[in-house]
Amino acid sequence: MAYELHYWPTIPGRGEFVRLALEAAGADYVDVARGSGKGQGIAATLRRMNAPALVQPPFAPPFLVHGKRTIGQTAAILLYLGPRLGLVGKSETSQVWTHQLQLTIADAVAEAHETHHPIATSLYYEDQRHAAVQRAKAFRELRIPKFLDWFETVLARNPKGSQHLVGARLSYADLSLFQLVDGLLYAFPKATARAMKKTPHVAQLHLSVPRNARLAAYLASQRRIAFNEEGIFRRYPELDG
Amino acid sequence: MAYELHYWPTIPGRGEFVRLALEAAGADYVDVARGSGKGQGIAATLRRMNAPALVQPPFAPPFLVHGKRTIGQTAAILLYLGPRLGLVGKSETSQVWTHQLQLTIADAVAEAHETHHPIATSLYYEDQRHAAVQRAKAFRELRIPKFLDWFETVLARNPKGSQHLVGARLSYADLSLFQLVDGLLYAFPKATARAMKKTPHVAQLHLSVPRNARLAAYLASQRRIAFNEEGIFRRYPELDG
Repeated sequence: MAYELHYWPTIPGRGEFVRLALEAAGADYVDVARGSGKGQGIAATLRRMNAPALVQPPFAPPFLVHGKRTIGQTAAILLYLGPRLGLVGKSETSQVWTHQLQLTIADAVAEAHETHHPIATSLYYEDQRHAAVQRAKAFRELRIPKFLDWFETVLARNPKGSQHLVGARLSYADLSLFQLVDGLLYAFPKATARAMKKTPHVAQLHLSVPRNARLAAYLASQRRIAFNEEGIFRRYPELDG
Repeated sequence: MAYELHYWPTIPGRGEFVRLALEAAGADYVDVARGSGKGQGIAATLRRMNAPALVQPPFAPPFLVHGKRTIGQTAAILLYLGPRLGLVGKSETSQVWTHQLQLTIADAVAEAHETHHPIATSLYYEDQRHAAVQRAKAFRELRIPKFLDWFETVLARNPKGSQHLVGARLSYADLSLFQLVDGLLYAFPKATARAMKKTPHVAQLHLSVPRNARLAAYLASQRRIAFNEEGIFRRYPELDG
């Protein structure tokens, strides 16, 4: 049974964390809002999300439909997919730890979004640029190093080696850290490069994850959406330093 | 084996979501940073968090220590505690759905914090008050109604009745929604009261959860920390409307 991923069709955003897991596992999935077939497109996604009969409605995209299940919240989707796609260890300890890493990545992603929308997502960037410049400064100087340092520590302390965040195999947390770093490098190239000089294991993970054969094929394909200024990670030169 | 909860000792903050679960279940736990005994106090918590030998270090408090496990991230702690404390259903569907609710509550909590710290957590409120006033306006007018409306929909659609978010029994998501609403009523009394007129099931849950015998005893005890202006939910009259 194919998975259905529902997410805004023009940005990588939070949907990309789910897409990377599906792609790395070679899973059979439909990227519904990006399709043009019957029952596809963004209207189909919104209709599904807002269906009055849905007993477990998602708060927002991304959401996953799998058989009768509809699951929202990026981290909850990965919690569900992890064991099914072989992207998390089998033990409870391993699963809770991988999830804890994912939730911290989610926090960093939310803070990256706040840098260009510190006042309201309902306002244009241009109308909150002054606050954005201030917020981005604190994010660059304090938060990027704090998050990357923590992941560096996790990699350095992994008893199975520093190639992976958890154990000796690729997990969805590795994929998500790759995407976080990739997004930070897009949005804050100078500040992120500076911070990464002190986090060699994180830098190495960011290089090694896309060498995975399935991921390499995916990243080179049209299915990979480029970062852009409508998404979470936006390159506004005045926000980098 | 007693649970150890580690969290900042003077604010309810994110630790309170864990505390409510432990209290509602009558669990044996030690609130480490608030204790004055041997191995207790905030220094003990920080020492534990920063121990170089910790293979799975928490990013920040709250974290839970249970035997050899150390688990950070509020939602991950509740994911772990839920089945152990009888505060979540047994099926995977029920557990993933309850977790999805918790993650949406966490998003609302983070946004509530942003209202008084839209620029940087490292700066004083007074130094970002101007941006805070703007951010709080959008939060009051758009986000509080959006979050509460979604929880209202979830309660209204629960096939087992609108007393609980999931199924027919108390879950950690109910406890957390109680705490979110309690915090919103503290920080934004006018705006929250206005929004709650349209969400009668949410208002009812906020009244019924504290009638639980164990919770009523807890809420009347010294163990319950009052909301205050060092925490996530702060009452600054200029931010309410």
